[in-house]
Amino acid sequence: MSQVNHVVFVGGTHGNELTGVYLINKLSQPSHAMQSTSFTTQTLLANPEAVSARMRYIDSDLNRSFSDHSLENINPKNYESLRAKQIADIIGPQGHPPADVIVDLHSTTSNMGLTLIIDREEPFTLQLAAHLQQVHPGVRIYSTTRSGRNQDALRSLARFGFCIEVGPVAQGVLNADLFLQTQSLVYVILDYLEQYNQNPAMLPNRSLTLYRYVEAIDYPRDAQGEILAMIHPQLQFRDYQPLHPGDPMFLTFAGETIDYAGETTTYPVFINEAAYYEKGIALCLTQQEEIVI
Amino acid sequence: MSQVNHVVFVGGTHGNELTGVYLINKLSQPSHAMQSTSFTTQTLLANPEAVSARMRYIDSDLNRSFSDHSLENINPKNYESLRAKQIADIIGPQGHPPADVIVDLHSTTSNMGLTLIIDREEPFTLQLAAHLQQVHPGVRIYSTTRSGRNQDALRSLARFGFCIEVGPVAQGVLNADLFLQTQSLVYVILDYLEQYNQNPAMLPNRSLTLYRYVEAIDYPRDAQGEILAMIHPQLQFRDYQPLHPGDPMFLTFAGETIDYAGETTTYPVFINEAAYYEKGIALCLTQQEEIVI
Repeated sequence: MSQVNHVVFVGGTHGNELTGVYLINKLSQPSHAMQSTSFTTQTLLANPEAVSARMRYIDSDLNRSFSDHSLENINPKNYESLRAKQIADIIGPQGHPPADVIVDLHSTTSNMGLTLIIDREEPFTLQLAAHLQQVHPGVRIYSTTRSGRNQDALRSLARFGFCIEVGPVAQGVLNADLFLQTQSLVYVILDYLEQYNQNPAMLPNRSLTLYRYVEAIDYPRDAQGEILAMIHPQLQFRDYQPLHPGDPMFLTFAGETIDYAGETTTYPVFINEAAYYEKGIALCLTQQEEIVI
Repeated sequence: MSQVNHVVFVGGTHGNELTGVYLINKLSQPSHAMQSTSFTTQTLLANPEAVSARMRYIDSDLNRSFSDHSLENINPKNYESLRAKQIADIIGPQGHPPADVIVDLHSTTSNMGLTLIIDREEPFTLQLAAHLQQVHPGVRIYSTTRSGRNQDALRSLARFGFCIEVGPVAQGVLNADLFLQTQSLVYVILDYLEQYNQNPAMLPNRSLTLYRYVEAIDYPRDAQGEILAMIHPQLQFRDYQPLHPGDPMFLTFAGETIDYAGETTTYPVFINEAAYYEKGIALCLTQQEEIVI
């Protein structure tokens, strides 16, 4: 990308993830306006009905409603399908102006700290990720290029769409520490984009640690779909820590341990995310990889 | 009470508090039947519709639906009012058999560890509390005698009704550690009641630390009811820790600290409980008091 012209910060894509909801609310007030000279900014509360209801969504997950197929539906059946089309009209490729960069603010019940989720490993994205890590060494970079999230998430409306995922925090709860850290990342991103517009080629080559999505693992379930086990206490809250073949993964209600049956060490994320029980995901396995940008 | 005849363990009074839901599910299976020789036991999944929906409630909070006034409503308007009447018919004073003891299993996003909530400070209740503390020294006893909870909670259907409140755990999440600890408390209670029936006067005098409810504190809000501040990072997760006059309590979105304005040291509980935002409760203040049973 030669120049960033329009940047959109989004909160409340999931109505019960309050960090983004309240940060977007703050950033949308004139007294806290985001300053930039070379591009325009916009805030968007993505799912106001779900925010009011303090629920993740009303009818279906808004952040899975942006596939071409969904957006081409001329008569959406539910609230989120309708809302997705509205949002696409506002900030999508035909928007006025369209978003060059979308930063969608999420939270998780998993212990993912400060995570930048990227869906495409393009140079612009990787340079931004490297810069964030330089300023906030605790930031992890989770790449979902192999998961298909770059085709149905809200952030997929822009070529450069990211998610800031912070946790652990319960749904419906504001954690001030995570709020402040997310706010800090937003300002670092704004500064970076301003610098980028001044000198798009400014960054030297550097290395970056990526956690690349490999596969999602479901809970053990019975024939009716009811879960038969919990995340093992030794795995709980150990996102991004190595999980070796034979390490405990689940604990059944009867007290039996189920080990990780893979053949290679993996680095799980989204361990015990509340919203993923219904999606059939107990955790996502990743590979830790060093890349040079 | 001379003899305990019927004991009811309840889960899913709030449908998204999974510890109780899955523990009741386990205990209701024949292979995990609760053993007792001198009393009968029963499990009850209180709000199955909310459990299915993974929500706290469908129409209104079931655990505020058991006042005499609510139960006398001959034409309930919503699901929980109807369900409260059904539950009262099953285990209330006119039940077959009525519950002598109700243990309602809850979880909280607050850092309350293992808490026994008691609504009446009667000798039977205090002796049970002291026994639990002896076996599990980490158990805290929270007395709500001054809050009115003994008049509208599900557990108020029995003369001896308790709540086991465990946290921190997000709504919609099973935490295996807290599940196992809650399960352990259930079995300690069963053993204790068995012993009690053998020798109701067995316990010596002993002292007990109670945290007695004093008042609930709301978030700072604007005229529209929207919150203006978060729990201060220095207070977050510090349930049962002393809060002194002048200690930080809230942090506004603009970054200003609001101090605790009380004149005496207090011991807050339910700090930043997700379900209490809508109730206008940011935390509950308690007094720490030593009593001799």
